Formats: sequence, structure tokens, C-alpha cells
Amino acid sequence: MSQSRLTELTWREVRRAGERGIALLPVGSQEQHAGHLPMGTDTLLVEEVVDRALALLDREPAPPEVVRLPALPFGHSPHHLFAAAVSLSAATLGAVLDDVLDSLVTSGYRRVMVVNGHGGNDEIMRLAVKRFALRARVTVAACSYWTLTADEDGDEAGRPDVTPGHAGWFETSLMLAAHPELVHTPVPARAPVQPPPLFDHPPHPGLTVERHGEWERVDGATDDASGADADRGGRLLDGRARGLARAIRAFDAASR
Amino acid sequence: MSQSRLTELTWREVRRAGERGIALLPVGSQEQHAGHLPMGTDTLLVEEVVDRALALLDREPAPPEVVRLPALPFGHSPHHLFAAAVSLSAATLGAVLDDVLDSLVTSGYRRVMVVNGHGGNDEIMRLAVKRFALRARVTVAACSYWTLTADEDGDEAGRPDVTPGHAGWFETSLMLAAHPELVHTPVPARAPVQPPPLFDHPPHPGLTVERHGEWERVDGATDDASGADADRGGRLLDGRARGLARAIRAFDAASR
Amino acid sequence: MSQSRLTELTWREVRRAGERGIALLPVGSQEQHAGHLPMGTDTLLVEEVVDRALALLDREPAPPEVVRLPALPFGHSPHHLFAAAVSLSAATLGAVLDDVLDSLVTSGYRRVMVVNGHGGNDEIMRLAVKRFALRARVTVAACSYWTLTADEDGDEAGRPDVTPGHAGWFETSLMLAAHPELVHTPVPARAPVQPPPLFDHPPHPGLTVERHGEWERVDGATDDASGADADRGGRLLDGRARGLARAIRAFDAASR
Amino acid sequence: MSQSRLTELTWREVRRAGERGIALLPVGSQEQHAGHLPMGTDTLLVEEVVDRALALLDREPAPPEVVRLPALPFGHSPHHLFAAAVSLSAATLGAVLDDVLDSLVTSGYRRVMVVNGHGGNDEIMRLAVKRFALRARVTVAACSYWTLTADEDGDEAGRPDVTPGHAGWFETSLMLAAHPELVHTPVPARAPVQPPPLFDHPPHPGLTVERHGEWERVDGATDDASGADADRGGRLLDGRARGLARAIRAFDAASR
Amino acid sequence: MSQSRLTELTWREVRRAGERGIALLPVGSQEQHAGHLPMGTDTLLVEEVVDRALALLDREPAPPEVVRLPALPFGHSPHHLFAAAVSLSAATLGAVLDDVLDSLVTSGYRRVMVVNGHGGNDEIMRLAVKRFALRARVTVAACSYWTLTADEDGDEAGRPDVTPGHAGWFETSLMLAAHPELVHTPVPARAPVQPPPLFDHPPHPGLTVERHGEWERVDGATDDASGADADRGGRLLDGRARGLARAIRAFDAASR
Amino acid sequence: MSQSRLTELTWREVRRAGERGIALLPVGSQEQHAGHLPMGTDTLLVEEVVDRALALLDREPAPPEVVRLPALPFGHSPHHLFAAAVSLSAATLGAVLDDVLDSLVTSGYRRVMVVNGHGGNDEIMRLAVKRFALRARVTVAACSYWTLTADEDGDEAGRPDVTPGHAGWFETSLMLAAHPELVHTPVPARAPVQPPPLFDHPPHPGLTVERHGEWERVDGATDDASGADADRGGRLLDGRARGLARAIRAFDAASR
Repeated sequence: MSQSRLTELTWREVRRAGERGIALLPVGSQEQHAGHLPMGTDTLLVEEVVDRALALLDREPAPPEVVRLPALPFGHSPHHLFAAAVSLSAATLGAVLDDVLDSLVTSGYRRVMVVNGHGGNDEIMRLAVKRFALRARVTVAACSYWTLTADEDGDEAGRPDVTPGHAGWFETSLMLAAHPELVHTPVPARAPVQPPPLFDHPPHPGLTVERHGEWERVDGATDDASGADADRGGRLLDGRARGLARAIRAFDAASR
Repeated sequence: MSQSRLTELTWREVRRAGERGIALLPVGSQEQHAGHLPMGTDTLLVEEVVDRALALLDREPAPPEVVRLPALPFGHSPHHLFAAAVSLSAATLGAVLDDVLDSLVTSGYRRVMVVNGHGGNDEIMRLAVKRFALRARVTVAACSYWTLTADEDGDEAGRPDVTPGHAGWFETSLMLAAHPELVHTPVPARAPVQPPPLFDHPPHPGLTVERHGEWERVDGATDDASGADADRGGRLLDGRARGLARAIRAFDAASR
Repeated sequence: MSQSRLTELTWREVRRAGERGIALLPVGSQEQHAGHLPMGTDTLLVEEVVDRALALLDREPAPPEVVRLPALPFGHSPHHLFAAAVSLSAATLGAVLDDVLDSLVTSGYRRVMVVNGHGGNDEIMRLAVKRFALRARVTVAACSYWTLTADEDGDEAGRPDVTPGHAGWFETSLMLAAHPELVHTPVPARAPVQPPPLFDHPPHPGLTVERHGEWERVDGATDDASGADADRGGRLLDGRARGLARAIRAFDAASR
Repeated sequence: MSQSRLTELTWREVRRAGERGIALLPVGSQEQHAGHLPMGTDTLLVEEVVDRALALLDREPAPPEVVRLPALPFGHSPHHLFAAAVSLSAATLGAVLDDVLDSLVTSGYRRVMVVNGHGGNDEIMRLAVKRFALRARVTVAACSYWTLTADEDGDEAGRPDVTPGHAGWFETSLMLAAHPELVHTPVPARAPVQPPPLFDHPPHPGLTVERHGEWERVDGATDDASGADADRGGRLLDGRARGLARAIRAFDAASR
Repeated sequence: MSQSRLTELTWREVRRAGERGIALLPVGSQEQHAGHLPMGTDTLLVEEVVDRALALLDREPAPPEVVRLPALPFGHSPHHLFAAAVSLSAATLGAVLDDVLDSLVTSGYRRVMVVNGHGGNDEIMRLAVKRFALRARVTVAACSYWTLTADEDGDEAGRPDVTPGHAGWFETSLMLAAHPELVHTPVPARAPVQPPPLFDHPPHPGLTVERHGEWERVDGATDDASGADADRGGRLLDGRARGLARAIRAFDAASR
Repeated sequence: MSQSRLTELTWREVRRAGERGIALLPVGSQEQHAGHLPMGTDTLLVEEVVDRALALLDREPAPPEVVRLPALPFGHSPHHLFAAAVSLSAATLGAVLDDVLDSLVTSGYRRVMVVNGHGGNDEIMRLAVKRFALRARVTVAACSYWTLTADEDGDEAGRPDVTPGHAGWFETSLMLAAHPELVHTPVPARAPVQPPPLFDHPPHPGLTVERHGEWERVDGATDDASGADADRGGRLLDGRARGLARAIRAFDAASR
């Protein structure tokens, strides 16, 4: 099998894999996901998508060699500190990514992929991979798992208006498929908050708007999760896993 | 007139405007724009769009009060240092934005908008406004000028495959409209680089990919600028200006 | 059961537990452990000891309430970068600990315990808990798992001359007990390196001595692991688990 | 013409000029200047002096080649934050200067001059040029525009007791000459504050003294501006411009 | 004499000594030592031990060459800021040590020893020497003076339960021997504080515990100093000095 | 006596003195001073001037209460690292000053004076006192000892063209008066270096110019020290001491 976990390899195996392989780092978070989902939702889901994608690749002929690092279980969630998040500052998360990426290049890796499970990590991850590619002779990819879909997925891509949202229909469906025992059911219905939060509904397309206290005002979620569905969640997860598997293949081909 | 320049106001005027007004900070860059465009292209264009947008607003009844700060003429351009950029590090640019935003809130501003002219500033700007809204009781917006279009713009939105690109058809058209004396013409044609740069053509949708040395390899531009056109550029600029004017109105309404 | 995993709790459960509970953060590493142990040895062992300790407490009446955070899988291992470590700098690890501890106090926790699995983290962890107790109204404990033994453990405390050492008899015995499938056996014998490394054998008691390149010179291990033994390892693990369980009880009693 | 603006050059022109030319960076501020002068006074005046100096040089035979960077419009003005300044911290301003200077040396410049318009930037600028000359093979000059006078200027050097002061006779005279439309006239007379501010009148020569709240106490200005005079201001500006032109020539000769 | 003070040497002497010599940096503190000992106790004692150790070495044949730096008179004492300490943050003290150590290696030193007089500096010092040995080709030692005893010292090693403690029997005895004029006598007796401070009496062996406000609660000292004794103090000092002299010899032999 | 050394006081004495007293911090350096003066020259001289000034004050009626901190023996000397300096970076020295000043205000001091003995510390010291007075309700003074002269000193003020210079006539004269045993005599004559160093002889008045490698080129000194004279040095020291004594009185009067 060409997919391995760095934590289980000896250092010589890690070094050897670095000659041709891709190091893959999942990044998650520990933050509030309303009253029905657990704190680790983002970490659990990114790991689930990675698990499924690597399993898909493993069934193919000549899969790219991937060394999976342990997921970073903490992310950048200052907007959820009002509700018990465990959050790294942007500077700290950026430093963690720098240190991990620098370690990998020191160990001989020339291809790295960061797979993210939490929206708040997005810009920090992208800045980190950009500066990494400037200071080291590497090719590096970054993505957030929910943005990856396979072309044929069609109507399984989810409801675009709630993808991914936060602690709503999309994430709840995925968790019902992946970790049903961690979802408090039945999930209560939730009326839309008026006005909707500016971070989710900017007043003009192309504008990013942030208002102090907005997450508290909308009670920490973006949409109604009561219609979440395990079957649909499973298909959505599989779609993302297929998308990630293809992205890994494409990255492998482009960066060899 | 409700649009003013902070640099020309006395401090009491600045303070007074802060009670109800919106502070607007343009951010540019000084970096290579191929052989035919000047280093300050991004700064010049963001200022042009802001100028036109504020002029549009000024012709309307009861425009929102906007205090325009001097543009920050330097941005984050480490990927262009191979070609004479003057670049701030991500940490430095983030610190400048933090300091400017903190100064504004100290002066009583509760609404700020950052308008960006350079792709490399994007994540840094968005992280800055997010952390600003967490530490201060403000509403803050951020955008890059090329993402703003007015709904009716239709075919004037530009060629999506080259919007904005770098030093190509889009930016050259805009510069021909705004600062023709600074464009070296005729602009030479340029054959597509093969393979196209990974930062511009990621191998899978949803993936950000950065490869060391890619900007040098493609000689600093993304597409052929030889078909650039001043008339088209003027309409594109006007479209962005209309978009920005509407975005300012919408932000004003949403954040009052 | 009074022991829970933060990653599986909803935020309200995390908040509620913070009123009386103890937050426990395991910290590990990803670093070379000679040719026979995996990179994640320190993380796996600290998690094993914590698992066993919490299981022991759970069998007792009225155990203290403990909320276990996900282990930080990366530690400070710059001295192992020559052999494929994934290492955080001291500044980064300190920042991660600060951010996690600050998050916990924001969420209402007043009692925190950090349990460490890697020698290189030790000073950083202790500095972090000291500054935490200065800036927040908390009581905070820190330990490295191998230093905790129960009074009656007697001869099960291990061979003091190799406790814990690195990638030698002690750690290999523990791994044979906890994760035998991850140990490459038979473990080859290793002749003592002469002179022994200064970091392990300082030339005078009370002196810390560091010499450039010493870890490379001794090939990354401190002692011969060929005599490691799963039974002994199991008893050593249980001894540490009993020690940690008692330490948690004692900390609970002293900090209530 | 041998004086050019970096913002208007293509990158190859910037690179070519770097082989023999001097890069010149003006640094200003945005801060209160009493009730009659605008926030941008320091930036406007340093630009005016640079404009006039470069125009003088341009009329001479074989002038040194100078590439002028866009002025940094923000400076270090924490002592004016009580009155609507937009201020960079000392660390931020130092980082901006480091980044700009490092960019220039990367682009081939070996000679740089920083021309300052705001007293609060002075030490930061001098530290920046000192560390720049230590880490790079460059010759670098720094000055504040008001300290430069041509030898023959004699009585046009200004009133030494109010040169430059802040928002008083000197700056007001210069602004009346350079930007009369931005001066609110008539400028009201102002009685001397008793005791005079310690930062301006230290109790013993050679002593720098700073007292908390002193700028607020003296209402943000050092001396009476009501006698300011456009003619005198024009001669003072010309004197500084002649001084700067000579300083540039002298620096060019000494650093070739 | 082979022991010299850097402060009294010319730079060529410093450089020459660096070829074979050991640079020795004492580090102290300025912090409260109860009502009877002076703020500089830690600095004075570490200097006293170093003085005596170097005098001992100087009487021996072929002593190692030691260049003694001036003691850093300030240490990390944030826990004593409630009582007039002059304290460097951990980051600042670490930076001072980095800068001093880097300067020494720039000057040609390959062997450095840091001798510490204050418990609060301990982890910071050890982290500093560890990272120093990673980035420079040096051998570096660190110790706190009270941990060094000569083998034959036997009962002169002090009362282990109060070694060193803070401002108690041990330090007072040493100060009575070294600087009796700075000790306010008679030293008042002090009843044990109940419960004893957690930093000094952790609830379980192997645990480091810090509680907010603990130093204030115990009034800044760990034990009763009223039985302190100058004769005993002198023997204790001599024991440490013998220990340090031997440690220097051993370090010299091991690092040549 | 109203002058005391913080290092010899108990914390309650330090606290009590803070209510009305002035804390005085001398700052020195360890850096090359040519072949005839010791590394600690700047530290020794600033301490000598402070000693003499405080002795003068002590002979007067009702002298201001001064608590003298131990001198910081290391300064910012990166330009002397080519010749065995022990140098703190500007950031480190700034952090030390911040930490010391913050500690003092925590201990109740409202008046602080920093007395500097090394030119390279000057801007850093002035920035530190400026930011201190902004963040704390204090009055703070800073000076370099050589700038302070008493009005009647007249011809004893030294040779202005060599005051203070570096390792030349001025400093050598002072050292011959204060520490003759540390001066290697006879001091060799030194021919002027041509061209003179730009840092000491800027090509235009008002310009600060730094050229890479200049200190090495001029062999570390600014002027000929062979005419240095102990008597003259003693009078110069006394003049500075009188100046400092008056400056302290004046600061005391202005800041009460």
C-alpha cells in the first residue's frame, strides 16, 4: 500500500518516502458547532475525507505515494472563543505550518499538500504555502475539503447555499454519515436569523464584511440543520473524497 | 461634498467625520508588470477605481460620507522580487494594516473599508479585517477592486479567463484608459507559456498550487496583452467603479 | 463516566465541565526513534499512559472530572531534524501552549494539566505553565509521564540508568507493550558509543552540556534496546499510569 | 532627465537605474497639525522639498541619477493618537523600512537615501539605515528635511527657536508657500503654554525628557503660528531644497 | 593568571583567548528577598561562587583559561513583580542570551559556560544553550550554582529541604558569609505558611504546579531564615565553589 | 545619604524610594576600543560619571533621592562585531529597556532617568523612553553622558572635534583619569585615515551616512589617542559629572 501514516513509520521510511512521495497534512479545529455537533467536527470531517480519498487511491493501479501526517487538531477560531473554542492565533497557526513545512523539506520532501477542514484556517494556510514555495524548492498544494468535488458529482455537490456553512445542514449531514454517535439527535429546527450575518451574506457580491459580535448574535450557526440526512451526507462525503483523490492524482502528475 | 481626503483635513474634521463616516483605505503595490506597464500599476488602478466610484457617489443624493486615506503604495510582492519589486513581508503588511485600523478606531471610526489593487495582498487584507472586527467594535469591509461589478455590466465584465491576470489583457486595457502615457506601446504579443503556471491554472479545481520559481519561468505575466484596448479598458474601469460605488452604498446601509 | 474527550463534546458540555473539571492536554512529538520505533512513539506513549490513568480513575469512586484535549502531535525536536523529525520551534510550541491555555481560561477552566511525552518539550512546557499562572487566575500542573511513579512501584520503576533515554530499552519496552505491531523486531543490539554523548552523560553532576552534532554522532539513540521486553514494558506503563492517576487526584485535591 | 519616479518605471528601467542610481524614499506622516494645518502636512512638505531639490538638480549639468520611490504616507505618531493620527508603531515602521531597503538591494541598488518629514520618525529611520548598512553592501543616507540648509542661506534658515517645532510658525509658513489652499486662515494667535512642554524645552541641555500627556496639555502645537508668512515660507522651502540638492550631490560623490 | 575579565581586556586579547578559552557568563536577578536580604542577592551570590571557583582554579597547575563576562544583573522574575522586582520577560532574557552567545561565537569562542544564580532563569538558560549548540559549532554548558557540589562535601551540602529555597536559611547563610553588611539582622523567625506553596511542595512527586498568587500568599519566602549562620554559609559557598571549579575542569577536558 | 543602589536595598526600601525618588539606569557596552582601551570602556565611564555626579549631589543640601540600578553591561554594538564585541540587537536592547522600565513603574516609580555610555545605544534608548512615557504615567529622561556639560565648563568641555569619538583622545583621556591601570600605554599615534569614515564625517551637514564595512576600514577608531592626558581627562570627567548632577536636579525639579 502506498499510503502510510508518518506517525507509524521509522525515520528512514519517512526519509525514503520523501524522495518521491507527497506529504499530506490535515488541519482541523476545536470549536463550537451549535448544540448538536461536537467540538472536533472539522477535524473529524477532514480526516474522514482524507481516509476515504486515500482508500480510493489505494484501489487504483500505481497510486501516488502519500505520507499522511497526523492532523493538527487545533485551528484558528477566535470568532468562536465566545463559545469554548480552543483556538490558535493566526500568527501561531502560521508558525506551526511554517515549522511543519520546513521540517518536511529538511527531510527531503519536495511535494506537500495541506488539506483543511475549517474555514477560519483558509487564508492562513494559503499564505503559508505561498511563502513556503518562495523559500524552498517545492511544489505545494492547499485546499479546503468542501471545495473539492468530482466533475460527475452533479446534484450530489450539496445545497450550494449551505455549503459548507457552519454547524448547519451540510456539516450535520456529513457527521450523521461519518460519526452518528457524536450527533445529538433530533437536531432542533432553527428559524433564520434576521438580518442574516454579514460574514455569510455580504451586502454586495465581492465584498468581505465582518461585524463585531456577529457570531454571538446568530448563535454560532449559519443555517437550519434539522433537515440533515445521513444518506445524503454519505454521498457528499464520497463526492469530496473522490474530488480529493483526483486532486491528489492531478497534483502528483503536475508536480513530478 | 461628502468625499474627502484625510491628508487634507484637519484633525478635528477627521474626528468629526469618524462619527458617521466610512474610512476608506486603498492598498496597492510596486512590482513588475512586464515590459510595458509601470511598477505602480496596481496602486494607480485602485486609486483610479476609487476616484471614479467616489465621483459617482458624489453625484447622487445623500451619498455616504467617505474619508479616503492615502493609498498604501507598497504591497506584498515577494514573488516579484526577482524583478525589482518593492515588497513588504506578509507580517509587515499585516502590521501596517493593524496599525492603520487601530488608529482609525482610536479616532472614533466605526466603519472602515479596505480596497485592494494587488492579488498578493488579498489574504493578508482579509485576515487583517477579520482580526480587527474581533478586537474592536467595528464593521469592516474588504475587497479587491476587480471582483466588484455592477449587475447590469454584462459583457463589460471583461474576459473572465484573464480577469485580472497579471500584466495581461485586463490590466493593460485599464492602464490604456487611465494612464496611457505610462504604457509602452505597441504592446508586444506573447505566446502562451507551456505548461501554464500552476498558480494560474491549478491541476484540479479548488486547489491552490504554488511551485518554486514559477513566476520567473513564465516571465512575470499570465496572458497576452497585445490585444488590450483603451475603450474596453475605460468601460471595465467604469464597471468596477459602479460596482464599488454600489458596494459602498450597500456597506453603508448594512453597517449604519 | 467523568472522563471525556473535548473533541467529542458540544461546546456547552465543554463550558459546563470547565466549572469544576480539569482540562488535560497531552503533548507528544514526531521524531526519529532509531531504526525500530515509529516517529510517533512519544505521542503514542503519552496517550497510552493517559488512557490507562483515566481508566484507573474511572474505576474509583468520585473520580475528578477530566476533559481530555486532543494530543498535540508535534513537539520541539530540532535536535532530530537531521533524521526526519517534524519539529516546532521553541517559540512556536510555546505559542501553541499559550493559545491553548488562554482558550481554556476563556472557556471557564481554572485547572489545567499538561502531560508531556517528549524530553525536548520539557522546559518549554514548564515556562508555559508558569507564565499562564501569572497572567490568569488558574492552578496549572505539568509533568513528563516517565517521571511519575507510584510509591509502591519499587522495582517496576525501570532501570534508572535508561529512564527514559531515547529509543532505547525503556521506550522500546513500553512500545512492545502498547503497540507491538509498530516495533520492528528483532531489535538489533547496539554497542555503547564512546565517549557517551555529553547531553546524556554530563562531565560533572549538575551540569547541562550540549555539543553541536552530538545526536548525529551517537546515531540518535542513548542505549541498547535489544533487551526490551513487552511484559516489563506493560508493568512500567501501568506504574506510570498509576502515578499519573494519583497525580491527577492529588492535583484535584490541592487545587479545588 | 535623470530624476524618475519608480512608480512610473517598468521593472527593467528600475533595475537598470539601480546599477548607478540613488533610490530616494520620502517618509511622511498623517497626524494632527493644530486647527489650521492638514493631517498630511509632513508628507506634503517632504514631497515639496524633494520635488524642488530634484528640479534644481535637473537644471544642473550631469546630475546624479535619482529614482524616487512613492512617499510612505504614514509615520510613527503615537503621541498624536489623542488627536486622530494614523500612526504606525515603531516596530511596524522599522519593518516597512527594512522591507523597502531590502527590496532595493535585491533589485541591485547600492545607494539609498531616506528623506524624512516627521520628527517622530527620526530615530526609527536612523536605526533602519544603520542596520541596513550592516547587513548589505550599501551606502545609505538619512536626513530630516528641515536640518538641511545650504551654507549661504544665512538668515533664511528660519527662526531657530521654532525650527521645525510642530504646527507652528515654521510649518505653517512652509504650507502657506506650498499648499495655501490647505491652510485655514487667518491662523489664530496662541499664547505660550506654561510651563512649556518638556519634550520641547528640556530642563537641562543634552537631556531628552518625555512626560506622559504632555502633547495633550499643550494642545498639540509648540509655538504661535499666527505670524506665519508665505514669502518667508517659500524662501525657507527653497533653502531646504537647495540643501537637499547639495546633500544628494555630496552623497553621490562620496558613495560612488 | 589564566582567569580574566572580558570587560578589562582589549578586543585582541578577547579574540586570542577565544581560540582556546572558555567564556563564562554569570546571570543573576534583581528581586525581592524578603525583608532582610537585598534585591541583588542572586547576582551577588553567583558572582561570589564564580570568584571563589576561579580563585581555586588559579591556584592549580595548568588551569583552564576562562574569560569571565560581566554578570547580567537582571533575570526573569515576573513572580516577584508584586514586590519590586526588576524583571526581564522570558522572551527578553532568551534574546539577551542568544545575542551574547552569538557574539561570542562570532569572536571565535567555541566553548561557553553559563552560570546561573536565580531559579527563575533556569529553563530559559537551558533552552538558550540548547538552541545555541544547534545553530553553532560549539560546546556549551549551563548550571545553577546551588546544584554543584563536590563529591566529598558530604554534610556541607546544606539542608536539602531548604536548598536553595528563596530568601530562607540557605541564601541567608550564604549572604551572611559573603556580604554580611547587606543582611538586616537579626533575621526574624517565620512560621511555616499553611498550606505550603504548591510551587515548592507539589502535591505529587514529579509534578510542577503553579497557582496564581502563590508567592504573594506566602509573602515571598519559602522557609525560616532565622537560623541562618555565616560559618555554615561560608562552608556552603566554598563547597559550591569547589563544585564549580571541578565542573569547569571537567567541561574543559570534555570539550577540548 | 539619599543615593542608594537598588541591588543593595530590600524590596520594601525600593518600593518606598519609588514614591518620591528617581530611578537611574546606566547603560554601557562591551566592545572594542582599539588596542589600548578595554572592552568595557563605555560601561566603566558611564559608571564613573554617575558615581561622581551622585557624590556631588550628596554633598548638597536636600539632594534629590536617586535609586541607582546596576548598569546594563551590554549594549548595541553590531558595528563592532568584527572585533569581538558582545552585542545585543536593537530589538533585544529595546526589550530590555522596556522590561526594566515597566518593572519600575510596577514598583511605583514615576520618574526614571537613563544615562548612556555608548553612542550605538542612543536611538534605542530614546525610542524606549518615548514609548514608556506614552504607555505609563511617568516622566522619564535620557541622556548620553558626554553631552552633559555644566555652563561654566568652558574650555574643559573637550575638543569638540573629538567628543566623544571612539577610542580616541576623549575616551582615552577619561580612562587615564578613571582607570589608568586598564589603559595600555604608551598609546601609539595614529595617522588620520583617508577618506575619513562617512559615519563620522558625513559629506553634508545634517546627513547621517552609513557605509558597509566602514568601521573595519578605519580600524575601529575615529581619531589619534596618543595625546590623551589624565589630568585633562579628570577635568572632563568632573565637567560631565557636574553636568549630570545639575541635570538630575533640574529633572527632579521639573518632574516633581
